[in-house]
Amino acid sequence: MRVVVVREPGGPEVLELGERPVPGPGRSEIRVRVRAAGVNRADLIQRQGHYPAPPGWPADVPGLEFSGEVDAVGADVRRWQVGDRVMGLVGGGGYAEFVVVHEDEAVRVPSAVPLVDAGAIPEAFFTAFDALDLQCGIRVGETVLIHAVGSGVGTAALQIARRAGLRTIGTSRTPEKLDRARELGLDVAIHGGADADWSEAVHSATNGRGADVVLDLVGATYVEGNQHVLAERGRWIVVGVPSGPRASVDLRRLMSKRASVTGTVLRARPLHEKIALARAVEDRLVDSFADGTLEPVVDDIFPAEEAGGAHARMEANANFGKLLLTWD
Amino acid sequence: MRVVVVREPGGPEVLELGERPVPGPGRSEIRVRVRAAGVNRADLIQRQGHYPAPPGWPADVPGLEFSGEVDAVGADVRRWQVGDRVMGLVGGGGYAEFVVVHEDEAVRVPSAVPLVDAGAIPEAFFTAFDALDLQCGIRVGETVLIHAVGSGVGTAALQIARRAGLRTIGTSRTPEKLDRARELGLDVAIHGGADADWSEAVHSATNGRGADVVLDLVGATYVEGNQHVLAERGRWIVVGVPSGPRASVDLRRLMSKRASVTGTVLRARPLHEKIALARAVEDRLVDSFADGTLEPVVDDIFPAEEAGGAHARMEANANFGKLLLTWD
Repeated sequence: MRVVVVREPGGPEVLELGERPVPGPGRSEIRVRVRAAGVNRADLIQRQGHYPAPPGWPADVPGLEFSGEVDAVGADVRRWQVGDRVMGLVGGGGYAEFVVVHEDEAVRVPSAVPLVDAGAIPEAFFTAFDALDLQCGIRVGETVLIHAVGSGVGTAALQIARRAGLRTIGTSRTPEKLDRARELGLDVAIHGGADADWSEAVHSATNGRGADVVLDLVGATYVEGNQHVLAERGRWIVVGVPSGPRASVDLRRLMSKRASVTGTVLRARPLHEKIALARAVEDRLVDSFADGTLEPVVDDIFPAEEAGGAHARMEANANFGKLLLTWD
Repeated sequence: MRVVVVREPGGPEVLELGERPVPGPGRSEIRVRVRAAGVNRADLIQRQGHYPAPPGWPADVPGLEFSGEVDAVGADVRRWQVGDRVMGLVGGGGYAEFVVVHEDEAVRVPSAVPLVDAGAIPEAFFTAFDALDLQCGIRVGETVLIHAVGSGVGTAALQIARRAGLRTIGTSRTPEKLDRARELGLDVAIHGGADADWSEAVHSATNGRGADVVLDLVGATYVEGNQHVLAERGRWIVVGVPSGPRASVDLRRLMSKRASVTGTVLRARPLHEKIALARAVEDRLVDSFADGTLEPVVDDIFPAEEAGGAHARMEANANFGKLLLTWD
């Protein structure tokens, strides 16, 4: 089968096509013919040589998610048949014509969703659902602040928060992305940049109450502002730190607000937790794609052999929503 | 009635006796004749002029907890009768012969517990129970790291964790306090001080797994070590920051461990939350004082007119467990 490999650590140009044996499914596994593989910031870091794949996953084939059709099933598989439309997360190797996953890790793609578009769902929506719903316990009537609201996770978090009846505030440094987020239903759009400015804008928009939940896709440069805008009993969840990991935290302010900071990551989780998330998504999230309440946000679709172009677009922060790779 | 007042911001010598009118209970309130009032670090900070009482509580009479007998009841009180033995938290004014609280904030003192000793229970045990059980959700078989294990909250947390079936690791900079904590059942006693040393000792004691829960009564100087010893999915709860509030946090490490940092404080909570905590304590904690599973740890008892001596002892970090003030 064809795969996209990282020839050596470097820029987008080090991505090239390679050949690998088609993998066979184990007894409880399914093999999926990939229709689309989402591009994630983690893939860029892995390509640069800074984020090795966890044990058991290919070291030089990036890719954390897929959509496609079930192509073969192991002897003990009960959930799926050949031809079923599925999507899901993998620990690596998603930039390939085939992936193999445990049958319980795969999630049904509703018939209303084009199978290629479904490749834009897993990392963005599973991550946002896990962070906002399962971990932060968002409740109707609360206010959520979503940084980098134009990113894959940001656009998913916006939709998930709206579906749950929250008021949504989003930041982006790109005015055009704020406009598009408004079209997706964002209630309050704030230009990102200096902490002091966006955090004051959040305070004004909430009459000084602040945000009950902060979805942090930025890291160090927004840490001071996040502490400022957290509401009493606020939950600040850190999903990505592209601006850097280390910053000064005022523990006394966390105490007086009785607030929390939680770090989260999907990739390194043990199988049973990945399965639990997949089942929760299928039980509580997937039907909202069927009725149109949620929609995958696809920025652009690249043939897999042009993966470098997709990486370059993400590195330039030019995408609104997800970039996908497909096989002809 | 007699009270202990802060004459002006300053050292222990600014505490002196004063006179105030005996307060009358409102319709749902009880008046308690105080038998003992615990001394807390917050009282020392308030005495220095840095921690003003919240609105509605006396500005110049410290004291956050009491034990005593119900002395008068409001017209709507149903839970208590005159003469009942109770204990509880107040937002201030505990260093007084009488306090008034909402009837639902008071907690029954089991007959097996001397009423003076019960004054050592509320801040220490309510705080530790709230932090470890209600907020961190400690579970049997987990490991908890308790800093300042010889403090009032530390000795209470140790007992609460043992009662719940956890393995306990404690730090103190005073070898004698570690010895006494061992007598209270501490499993692993570690000398506090430089981060690198105690955190390595915690790693060794847990075979590199780290602590599922960290009860932080220290703050800034232990922040690096706490991040180092947090186990995967670890919960770090900040109850006090005497060494300072600000320190560098590595958000990426929180992500890879999927760990959380939560700040907490009791004093500033709204009445309904204080009542909820008092009811949870009465339902799930108090009977363990009756059967001896839990015991208030009383370091020393001072007459109220010698409150300055109690403050000086706490400022010198000489106490193991609680310091109490009593009225003759």
